[in-house]
Amino acid sequence: MNAAALHVILPQGFRAAGIHCGLKKQKDQPDLGLLLADLPVPAAAIFTQNQLLGAHVHLCREHLQHSGGLVRAVLANARNANCATGAQGIEDARTCCRQLAERVGCPPEQVLMTSTGPIGAPLPVDRITGHLDALLAAARPDRGLDFARAIMTTDTQPKAVQQTAAGCTVTGFAKGAGMIHPNMATMLGFLLTDGRPAGDLPALLRTVADRSFHRLSIDGDTSPNDTLLLLATGRVPTGGSALAAALTAVGQQLAQQIAADGEGASRLITVQVRGCRSEAEATLVGRTIATSPLVKTAVAGRDPNWGRILSAAGRCGIAFTAERARVWIGGADVYSGGRPHPQHEPAAHQHLLRESAVILGIDLAVGTAEADVWTCDFTKDYVQINADYRT
Amino acid sequence: MNAAALHVILPQGFRAAGIHCGLKKQKDQPDLGLLLADLPVPAAAIFTQNQLLGAHVHLCREHLQHSGGLVRAVLANARNANCATGAQGIEDARTCCRQLAERVGCPPEQVLMTSTGPIGAPLPVDRITGHLDALLAAARPDRGLDFARAIMTTDTQPKAVQQTAAGCTVTGFAKGAGMIHPNMATMLGFLLTDGRPAGDLPALLRTVADRSFHRLSIDGDTSPNDTLLLLATGRVPTGGSALAAALTAVGQQLAQQIAADGEGASRLITVQVRGCRSEAEATLVGRTIATSPLVKTAVAGRDPNWGRILSAAGRCGIAFTAERARVWIGGADVYSGGRPHPQHEPAAHQHLLRESAVILGIDLAVGTAEADVWTCDFTKDYVQINADYRT
Repeated sequence: MNAAALHVILPQGFRAAGIHCGLKKQKDQPDLGLLLADLPVPAAAIFTQNQLLGAHVHLCREHLQHSGGLVRAVLANARNANCATGAQGIEDARTCCRQLAERVGCPPEQVLMTSTGPIGAPLPVDRITGHLDALLAAARPDRGLDFARAIMTTDTQPKAVQQTAAGCTVTGFAKGAGMIHPNMATMLGFLLTDGRPAGDLPALLRTVADRSFHRLSIDGDTSPNDTLLLLATGRVPTGGSALAAALTAVGQQLAQQIAADGEGASRLITVQVRGCRSEAEATLVGRTIATSPLVKTAVAGRDPNWGRILSAAGRCGIAFTAERARVWIGGADVYSGGRPHPQHEPAAHQHLLRESAVILGIDLAVGTAEADVWTCDFTKDYVQINADYRT
Repeated sequence: MNAAALHVILPQGFRAAGIHCGLKKQKDQPDLGLLLADLPVPAAAIFTQNQLLGAHVHLCREHLQHSGGLVRAVLANARNANCATGAQGIEDARTCCRQLAERVGCPPEQVLMTSTGPIGAPLPVDRITGHLDALLAAARPDRGLDFARAIMTTDTQPKAVQQTAAGCTVTGFAKGAGMIHPNMATMLGFLLTDGRPAGDLPALLRTVADRSFHRLSIDGDTSPNDTLLLLATGRVPTGGSALAAALTAVGQQLAQQIAADGEGASRLITVQVRGCRSEAEATLVGRTIATSPLVKTAVAGRDPNWGRILSAAGRCGIAFTAERARVWIGGADVYSGGRPHPQHEPAAHQHLLRESAVILGIDLAVGTAEADVWTCDFTKDYVQINADYRT
């Protein structure tokens, strides 16, 4: 997906690792990841809005509160969500963090943990703690890709992005694939930087998320484990807007990578929404279109079915006049002035057939605000993957 | 689906017909339907909340307003939604109604029309008007099934229910299959009765819809043409509650028929929600679970994946404590007391394997209100049907 992922370098002051500890079946697939800072680093987090919370969400909140928002290490595992596992699940996550903290030489509350995978099975604590020494030994500044691989579940590609701006580096990782419709947070996402934020770190993270991960939907299902972490060492003085822009760009690229690698996806869909009263409205329109099974199956069938795009926009609760709206697919205007333009449908059809990244656009003509939202098409393979997930 | 459909008799004072006028390809498939009252009958309607409105929605609203809510005939066509067709589309529907009114001998505003099918193509007016004489000639009190067949699109079964209560008859028809997640209305639904409502007809229809069609979701997509009509001659005096109960029972059976015949469906799913603060909350929880692609693909895979049920409930915006919730599949408690019960999963698996109508249940333990919501599983066939719909 991303050739740059082969050369993922972390910002100054960070190391990463990913090894196999026995959670995934294949031994060549890493399933235990580590992000390690040389010193305690200011951090911000956004967690899922789901009422069901993975054990790591409880633990991360507790640790961030006790540490005053300082983080030294983030442990991550795949193939087990440690969710709906009750008090024992939280205790299990606590054990993993404590044992890592002892080896790193920091207070336990400076270690966070994130888990992803099927819900409801007990966390295999011994497999994790039995591999902490090996994990620490593997940590290096150029091992970002190992970490990205260690958090993959049904992802077919590791997701990593690196960008340099105003002298600072931003490196991001994510895992996606399914149960993805972030609302206040996302699947698992990690943003590391050596830049110095101008203001409040949580506010910065929220701004970044609102324009990146929150504009992504795979299937409308919000995971109980959704977590986005930002760690910023602050070594490099940067104008606040430069750092925010770099973080947003990295977040958007990760969101696009997640959409392109959605379960069963054959097309990355960018929903371009224009002519709205506010960016929030535009995002809502985009998310509604991006969540419509009928829109997404039409793209899977390479059908330029603009009626479904207009209809999805029509049900999102925002007032507009359908007769004044305009709908396009690729470069082809397929509906405007209250009328279809069937003569443009062949061009739209060719766009869907030929491009792996396709454009669905709508202009509501009620304002000037706009937003892009990312999703993927909805194929039989999505059904296959999710029908068979636990078998 | 419903053996009773073979003997659909209309309430006293109504006739029905369904004939082929050339909209569907196969000549043995009716595509033009008629409901005809002997005299003008009080009617109520609920229409889609979509901002994009089918031409018939504009026209029905106008006609009901001009007629003071009296209806003599309802014309219905399949295979063309007459939607996103601009002013011409409304004019086309008006022409059809006017020509039918001339033949029936009533004011044009006493004729309603409903259309269903693909969005965006001009209505073939001549095919319809050229068959109005034949349609009227075919109308009889025992031709309900012909009407039910004439409104089918991707439905595999006609949907008709008849019930007698307190001396009055309620007969209902519907079409469903896809783009179904009613919000204030549903696909196409028709309720006819000779009973006499105790109070306000629109309020009665809303009550009935809230407990029947509004508890149904196929794919979360609301159609621009969603319409539910109630025609009540009032010949038979009935207690208000008896008539409301009969109408609700008929509406619920139609909703279940629509869910069972959802596009690509192999299982009718009843989502039982218990222990909520209000019926509205219980309905919201049920609709969220019933809309979750992950829940619905799990049922397609016969996987008793209770984590997805709990997680879907958790993201619907209602506060509850996951540790106090209980989840069941068929008769098997698979999660309670904050813990999974893997020993009960085989029984849950067998339920999903063997039954064509399956139960997914959740008790939030925050109150005593409850609701059932109906949907279907999400199979590869849904994707196939909707990828190929226009080809």
